Amino acid sequence: MGKETKELLVLEDILGSNKKIASSIRKKLTENGILAINLLSAPGSGKTSLLEKIGQKLKNKHKIGVIEGDIETERDADRIRKAGLPAWQITTHGACHLEAKMLAQIFDQIPADLDFLFIENVGNLVCPASFDLGESLRIVLVSTPEGDDKPKKYPEAFITSQVLVLTKCDLLPYLPFDTDRVIKEALEINPHLKVFKTSATSGEGLDELGAFLEAELKQRRSQHA
Amino acid sequence: MGKETKELLVLEDILGSNKKIASSIRKKLTENGILAINLLSAPGSGKTSLLEKIGQKLKNKHKIGVIEGDIETERDADRIRKAGLPAWQITTHGACHLEAKMLAQIFDQIPADLDFLFIENVGNLVCPASFDLGESLRIVLVSTPEGDDKPKKYPEAFITSQVLVLTKCDLLPYLPFDTDRVIKEALEINPHLKVFKTSATSGEGLDELGAFLEAELKQRRSQHA
Repeated sequence: MGKETKELLVLEDILGSNKKIASSIRKKLTENGILAINLLSAPGSGKTSLLEKIGQKLKNKHKIGVIEGDIETERDADRIRKAGLPAWQITTHGACHLEAKMLAQIFDQIPADLDFLFIENVGNLVCPASFDLGESLRIVLVSTPEGDDKPKKYPEAFITSQVLVLTKCDLLPYLPFDTDRVIKEALEINPHLKVFKTSATSGEGLDELGAFLEAELKQRRSQHA
Repeated sequence: MGKETKELLVLEDILGSNKKIASSIRKKLTENGILAINLLSAPGSGKTSLLEKIGQKLKNKHKIGVIEGDIETERDADRIRKAGLPAWQITTHGACHLEAKMLAQIFDQIPADLDFLFIENVGNLVCPASFDLGESLRIVLVSTPEGDDKPKKYPEAFITSQVLVLTKCDLLPYLPFDTDRVIKEALEINPHLKVFKTSATSGEGLDELGAFLEAELKQRRSQHA
């Protein structure tokens, strides 16, 4: 058998500031028609569960990769691989957020023919919001058990995102969570937020979110064609 | 009416490193027989709800104060005041954790005759773990909807705490949460953790936690008498 010649992504410049590296990453991903999506939330809001389910929906038609950011352990990457998706783990060993340089270090492992590259950030609703990773779309998640008062208490993540995904909506009957309040408050901070109500358990809202991501991919590719 | 002469806490030194300021705060609180308790958790784990309920249990017999750390808004302090407890808000305006110098800046507002001083940190399971605030007891909270895999993914908060409080246990029938797993894992990281299973909704475990805090106060006062 001949040597495998799978094309991989190569960054010209992995030095410089976070912003500069993030711009290089975004340029390279966009040139390759890859839609990179940075997922931000508190610990336990359901980022990995959402990716397992959305990934399984999209993978029949699209090529998907997942970068998993965690302080310790490779648990989330293992879950994603069990769901049949390739995953690259970045373990920060204490650092509270991903930075573009961490992505740059594993960038040459990522296939150039992906459609979607999901980046699951460290579970932290604060610090990751300040670091551009070169994504084209940022999604902030709020799980219903966290309470409906989060947007104004943690505004940066909502200001810098384009999409708000409410997760664990199957638990609404058991919680004092006012869906209208959280959406109203989030839109006061960022009127451009696109909002999805979802549950990885019941499947609610996942088709809509999947269709939205497919439309975003198509639109962005046509813009950069 | 004469001028009010309520005794307040005064710090000798509010300059210097976090560690130095924290030591000054701890010394002053301990001299005054105040048990300071730093509460750490992810956003929405139920720190404020726990304080509302524990505060109401303890306030008949003890004098209680609450410092509320938040990135933005005074919502949590308002909730604590509505529960009949004095609260001092520290709004960090973007900073992801409390530091001892922030407490030092409001320290002269805190009555010297408190029994318990609760410090609700910014909702963040990562960064606050690295900052000593001069507390004598650190409690880490994990809410059941966050999942049972948190201790090894976010170890620092569990290593530096003396107490683990599982919150929202009333939701257990609706969740894939293995209580034994999370306790086992937390104790592997820190075998000295004292664990409480609680629910601010059902009241489960609150008497036990309250009794533990009263016993801690008594024991620490006898040590420093």
